[in-house]
Amino acid sequence: MNFRNITTLAALLAAAPVLGMAQETAVVVEEAEAAAPAFDEIGPYIMTTLLFLVGGFLVFWMAAGFAMLEAGLVRSKNVTTQLTKNIALFSIAGIMYWLVGFNLMYPAEWMMEGYMGPFFQWTALEPVGLGAADASLDYASVASDFFFQLMFCATTASIVSGTLAERIKLWPFLIFVVVLTGFIYPIEASWQWGGGWLSEAGFYDFAGSTLVHAAGGFAALAGAIVLGPRIGKYAKDGRVVPMPGSNLALATLGTFILWMGWFGFNGGSQLKISNFGDANAVAAIFVNTNMAAAGGVVAALLTVRLIWGKADLTMALNGALAGLVAITAEPLAPSPLLATCIGAVGGILVVFSITSLDRMKIDDPVGAISVHLVCGIWGTLAVGIFGVKGIIATGSPDQLINQLIGIGAIGLFTVAFCLVLGLLLKFTIGIRVSPEEEQMGLDLGEHGISAYSL
Amino acid sequence: MNFRNITTLAALLAAAPVLGMAQETAVVVEEAEAAAPAFDEIGPYIMTTLLFLVGGFLVFWMAAGFAMLEAGLVRSKNVTTQLTKNIALFSIAGIMYWLVGFNLMYPAEWMMEGYMGPFFQWTALEPVGLGAADASLDYASVASDFFFQLMFCATTASIVSGTLAERIKLWPFLIFVVVLTGFIYPIEASWQWGGGWLSEAGFYDFAGSTLVHAAGGFAALAGAIVLGPRIGKYAKDGRVVPMPGSNLALATLGTFILWMGWFGFNGGSQLKISNFGDANAVAAIFVNTNMAAAGGVVAALLTVRLIWGKADLTMALNGALAGLVAITAEPLAPSPLLATCIGAVGGILVVFSITSLDRMKIDDPVGAISVHLVCGIWGTLAVGIFGVKGIIATGSPDQLINQLIGIGAIGLFTVAFCLVLGLLLKFTIGIRVSPEEEQMGLDLGEHGISAYSL
Amino acid sequence: MNFRNITTLAALLAAAPVLGMAQETAVVVEEAEAAAPAFDEIGPYIMTTLLFLVGGFLVFWMAAGFAMLEAGLVRSKNVTTQLTKNIALFSIAGIMYWLVGFNLMYPAEWMMEGYMGPFFQWTALEPVGLGAADASLDYASVASDFFFQLMFCATTASIVSGTLAERIKLWPFLIFVVVLTGFIYPIEASWQWGGGWLSEAGFYDFAGSTLVHAAGGFAALAGAIVLGPRIGKYAKDGRVVPMPGSNLALATLGTFILWMGWFGFNGGSQLKISNFGDANAVAAIFVNTNMAAAGGVVAALLTVRLIWGKADLTMALNGALAGLVAITAEPLAPSPLLATCIGAVGGILVVFSITSLDRMKIDDPVGAISVHLVCGIWGTLAVGIFGVKGIIATGSPDQLINQLIGIGAIGLFTVAFCLVLGLLLKFTIGIRVSPEEEQMGLDLGEHGISAYSL
Repeated sequence: MNFRNITTLAALLAAAPVLGMAQETAVVVEEAEAAAPAFDEIGPYIMTTLLFLVGGFLVFWMAAGFAMLEAGLVRSKNVTTQLTKNIALFSIAGIMYWLVGFNLMYPAEWMMEGYMGPFFQWTALEPVGLGAADASLDYASVASDFFFQLMFCATTASIVSGTLAERIKLWPFLIFVVVLTGFIYPIEASWQWGGGWLSEAGFYDFAGSTLVHAAGGFAALAGAIVLGPRIGKYAKDGRVVPMPGSNLALATLGTFILWMGWFGFNGGSQLKISNFGDANAVAAIFVNTNMAAAGGVVAALLTVRLIWGKADLTMALNGALAGLVAITAEPLAPSPLLATCIGAVGGILVVFSITSLDRMKIDDPVGAISVHLVCGIWGTLAVGIFGVKGIIATGSPDQLINQLIGIGAIGLFTVAFCLVLGLLLKFTIGIRVSPEEEQMGLDLGEHGISAYSL
Repeated sequence: MNFRNITTLAALLAAAPVLGMAQETAVVVEEAEAAAPAFDEIGPYIMTTLLFLVGGFLVFWMAAGFAMLEAGLVRSKNVTTQLTKNIALFSIAGIMYWLVGFNLMYPAEWMMEGYMGPFFQWTALEPVGLGAADASLDYASVASDFFFQLMFCATTASIVSGTLAERIKLWPFLIFVVVLTGFIYPIEASWQWGGGWLSEAGFYDFAGSTLVHAAGGFAALAGAIVLGPRIGKYAKDGRVVPMPGSNLALATLGTFILWMGWFGFNGGSQLKISNFGDANAVAAIFVNTNMAAAGGVVAALLTVRLIWGKADLTMALNGALAGLVAITAEPLAPSPLLATCIGAVGGILVVFSITSLDRMKIDDPVGAISVHLVCGIWGTLAVGIFGVKGIIATGSPDQLINQLIGIGAIGLFTVAFCLVLGLLLKFTIGIRVSPEEEQMGLDLGEHGISAYSL
Repeated sequence: MNFRNITTLAALLAAAPVLGMAQETAVVVEEAEAAAPAFDEIGPYIMTTLLFLVGGFLVFWMAAGFAMLEAGLVRSKNVTTQLTKNIALFSIAGIMYWLVGFNLMYPAEWMMEGYMGPFFQWTALEPVGLGAADASLDYASVASDFFFQLMFCATTASIVSGTLAERIKLWPFLIFVVVLTGFIYPIEASWQWGGGWLSEAGFYDFAGSTLVHAAGGFAALAGAIVLGPRIGKYAKDGRVVPMPGSNLALATLGTFILWMGWFGFNGGSQLKISNFGDANAVAAIFVNTNMAAAGGVVAALLTVRLIWGKADLTMALNGALAGLVAITAEPLAPSPLLATCIGAVGGILVVFSITSLDRMKIDDPVGAISVHLVCGIWGTLAVGIFGVKGIIATGSPDQLINQLIGIGAIGLFTVAFCLVLGLLLKFTIGIRVSPEEEQMGLDLGEHGISAYSL
C-alpha cells in the first residue's frame, strides 16, 4: 500500500460548507459530463474504484468475522457483550476515522498551506465539482479509497476486542476504541502509508502485517497487561484452566469470513487493477493469500498432533489466521510454495505462542496476540529474509534492520500510548467489571440479557 | 433508481417461444460476434452489467441476513418455521417476480402495442439474438438488471416475515408472499421506478426507503393488526412481557450481512458505473451508507444508555438497520456528516418506535415495523428537508409535500391490499396457529422438528 | 467451462527456480510497462481476470457453506470434528491442487515437449517477466484462473465430507482428501476440461454437474459403502431412526452461502466477461442459477407437503441445492422457465432419493449423495434432453448417449478409485472410529472438546 494520491484530494478544495453543498455543484457536474472522456481514458479509473469497493466490502466483512470468531470463543455468559463491542467498535471506527483519522493519516498538501482546516474537508470525500478533465484519472475515486482505508482502521480495533474479552467494561473499552481509531492507528500508519518517516527509512509492509496486525496485537498486549487475567484462568498451583469457547461453529464461520475478507485486504492493497501488471499482481496476491492460510492450517494441525496427539479445531482456526497475518507484509513477491511456507511457519508459531503466553499468565481468550502480534512480526521479518521483487534483495541484513526498526517504533508507540490510556481509564472510571459480575457473566451485568435462550 | 431502459427490452421481441429457442439463435449470435464492437464501445455496458451482478449478489445475501436476524430474534421453539419461511419466501419471490412482477413493474412498449402478451416474454430476458450493434450499449444486460431488481422485491417480503413471526401459519403466509411479490410490490414500485404517476408527481426515492422498506413495513403493520399479538406478550396488568430472542449471535450475524448487502442495495441503485461521475457516485454511496449505519448504532446505544442505563445489543442492531433504511432514500447527496446524522436520527427513532408500538399492543417480534416503516418514512422525508444535488432544493416545502404524497399513496395501497388479503385468508383457511400450537412452538406443529438439538 | 488457454501458460517458461525469483524479473517488468498497451487492448484481460477473482471468492465462500451445512446437520457431539474436517480439507485441497492437480488437469504443451518438469512450474503462476505485448490478452491472468479452478477441486472434497460424517476417523479422511484433490478430481476433470477424451467424445458439462458434483457424490457413495451406516441408524425391525441435526439455523445459513457462491460457480464458468455476448451470458447464468434454486425449494416443499402433510426445512434446503446442482450442467441455454423446471425436478428427485437411500441402508447424514450425485446426473442428462443453443440439438438421442458415457466413465473411475483407496485405508490404519467413540461422539474422541458449551 502506498500513500494516497494527493492530486485528487486537492479537488476537495472545491467543496462547499458542511450541509449546504447540494445545489451549487450541479451545474459543475453537468459541465463535467459535457466533456466526458472516452472509456479508454476513464476505464482505468473505474476499474481501480471498483477494486476498492469490492476489496472494501470484503474487508468490511472481516468485522463480522471477528464478531463471530470472538463470540464463538468466549464463554456463553459473555457473548452478548462481545457482540455489542464488535458492532459498536466498527461503528465508532467509521465515525472517528472519517472525523479525524483519514486526514491525520494522509495529510493533504493544502493542510500545510493553511488553506483551510480539516473540518471543512469533512463536507465531502469526492471531487464532485471536478470535471474528469481536471481530476487525476490514474487512480480512483477518493471515496472508494477512503472506504477501503477505513476498513483497515476498523480491523485494528477488532483485533483488540478479543484479547480484552470477558472482563473489560463496555464503555471504557469504547472510549479506548475512539482513541485507537481516531489517533493511534492513523498516526502510526501515516509513518508508512502516509509517506512518513518509516517509509523514508526503508521499512516495508505491503498490506499491514505490522501497521494493522502487529499494531492491533501490541494494543491488545498492553490492554491485557493493564487488565490482568480472567478470574480462575491461572490456578494457584500453576495450572492453566481451559475455558472453552461457547460455540466453535461460530468461531469456524468467523475464520472462514476472515479468510474471505483477506482476499480484499491483501488484493485491494495493490491499489490498482487498471493495467496488465497490476491485474496479474492482484490475482497472484489472491493465490498467495490462500496458500498461506492453507499452510497455516495444515502446520497448526500437524504441530498439535505431534505435541498432544489430538486434533484441535481452535488451533487450526488460529493457524489459518496466523498464515494470513504472516503473508500480509508481502503477498505478491513469494512464489506459491514460499507463501505456503511463510503461512506454515505462522501456523507453528501460533501454537507455541499461545502456550507461552499462558505460561507468562498473559490471558488472551481468543489468541489474538499470538495470531496478530507474533505472526505479524514474523511476516514483517520474512520480507527482509526473502526480499521483494525489484525492491528488496533476498536475505538483506540491512532490510532486516529496517524491518526491526519499524516493528520496534510501532510497538513502542502503540504500547506506550495504550498503557497510558489504559492506566488513565483504570484509575478514573475503571476498566474492569467487578469480580461478581465477571463470574456471573458480563451479559447479565451490562445488558441484563443472555445471548442464548435455547 | 430510475425506470429501466426500454430500448433493450425491445430486443426481447426477437425471442422465440418458450422452450424451443435453442437452435435458431446461434446463427444470429455468430453474426453479432462478427460485428463485435471495440472494447471502448462495449466496456461501459460490461461495467454496468457487472455492477448489477455484484450489487445483485450482495442484495441476495440480504435474504440470508433477514433469515439469520429473524431466526436469532424469535424464540427457539419457532426457529425452524422462521427459517423455512425465509428460504421459501425468497424462492417464491424469485418465481413470482419473474412470472408477473417484472413485467408489471416495467411495462415494455410492445405490451401496449399488443405485439404479444407477457407470457411470450417469459422465454428470455436477454437479447440473445441481438447483435451489439443493435443493442442499447449505454445501459447493461437485461438479465443483470432483472437479477438486481428481483432482489428488491424479495427484500420487501423478507421484511414482513419477521413481524408476523411466532404465530402465523406457514402456508397462508406463503400465499401472502405470492401476492406481495407478484402484485403488490411491483404495482406500487412501478408508480415510481416504472415511470408511473408518482415519479411524474415529483416523488423522490433513490433506492427504496419507501418503495421497498416502508412498503414492507406497511405490509407488516397490516399483517400484525390482522394477526394480533402473540399470546402472553401483553399481560393483563398492562405489562409488556419480554420474549428474548433465541440466539443473539445469529441476530448480529444477520445484521452484519444486511449491512454488507446494503452496499449493493444502495450502490447498485446508481444504475451505472461506466463513467467518471457514476463511478464517483457509487463510491460516495458506499461511504454514506456505511456512515448512516454507524450513526444508527452509536445513536441507538447512547439513547438506550441514557434512558435505561444499560447497553442493549438488540437495539444496537436495530440502530444499524434504522440508519441503513433512513439513508436509502438518498445516499448520494448528503455529505458523510449529514449521512451520519440521518442514520443517527434513525437510530434514535427506532428505540422510541419499538417501545411505542408495544404500548399500542402492536406486536412485532423483530422490530421490523420500527426499522423499515418508521425509518423508511424518516429517510423519505429527509430528502425533502436536505434536498438532492441539482434536483431538489434544500428545505423545499413543495418537495416535502411530494414525499408525503408518495408515502401516503404507497401506505394506503399496501395497507388496504394487505388488510383485504389478510382478512380473506383469515376467514377462509385461517392465518393463525392454534393457541396450543403457539405455546408449544410452531416448529413441532408445522415441522415436527426442533431447530436445535444441543 | 473450457480447457485453459495454453498460450499464457507458456509464459511460465520464463520463471526462475523455486525461491530465488525475486530480483531478476524486476527489469523485465519495467520493460513490459514501458510498452504498456492502451486500456482498450488490456481492458478485456482485466475484466476476465476480475471475473475469476470475484467468481473465485464466491466459490471459496462455498467451503464455508458446506462447513455450516454439515455442522448444522450432524449431531452436536460430532460438530467440532466436522468443522475440523471442513477447514482441513479446504487447506489440503489448496496445497494439493497447486502441487499436483492443476498441472495434471491442464497439461501444458511444454510438459510433453520435456522442456522442464512440473516442479519448476511451481515457482510461479504468473507470467511476471512477460510484457503485455507477448502475453495472450484475450484471456486472463493465469493466477486468477488457477484461483478459480482450485475452488472447484475443493468443492468436490467438501461434498464427500458430509456423507462420511459422524463415523469416519479424522486422519484417514484427510489422507483420502489428499488423493481426491491431488489426483482423482484432476484426472477425471481433465478428461473434459483439460481437453481430454470425454470432450472429444462429445460429452457436455458446463460447470460441473458431473465433473464436480456427481464425481463428489460418487466418491461419497463409495465411502458410505466402505464405511457402513452409523450405529443405530437402521433399527433391527427395519425402521429408519431419525437423527436430527444439531442446528438448523446453521444449516440454513450454509445453504444460503452455497446459493450465493453458486453465482460465482456457474457465472465464472463462462470464463469470459470481456465482450457483449459473454457479459450477457454471465448475467443470464446468474438468473437461471437463481431460478433453478427457487424451483428446487418450492418443489421440495410441495412434494413433502403432499407426501407427509408437513413442512420440512431440511428438505427445502436440499431442494435448493438440488436445483443448483441440476442447472450446473448448462445454466445458460435454458429460458428462466426451463431453468425453474430443471431445478424443480431436482427438488422432487432429492426427496425420493433421500428416502430411497435410507431404504437401501446407505447412510448419508446430510443427503449429499442425493443432492450432488442424483441431481448431478439429472442435470447432465437434461443437457441431452433440452439441448444447448447452437451446440446440441434439443432431444438428441446421440447426445443423451454421450452424456451417459461421461457419467458412466467418471462414475466407474471415481467409485473404483475410491473403493480401492477406502479398502486400503480400512485394512491398514482403519477408517472408522470405535463403537464407543461413535456413541460418545467424535468430538470427545478426536478433540477432547465439545463444540457447544452453552
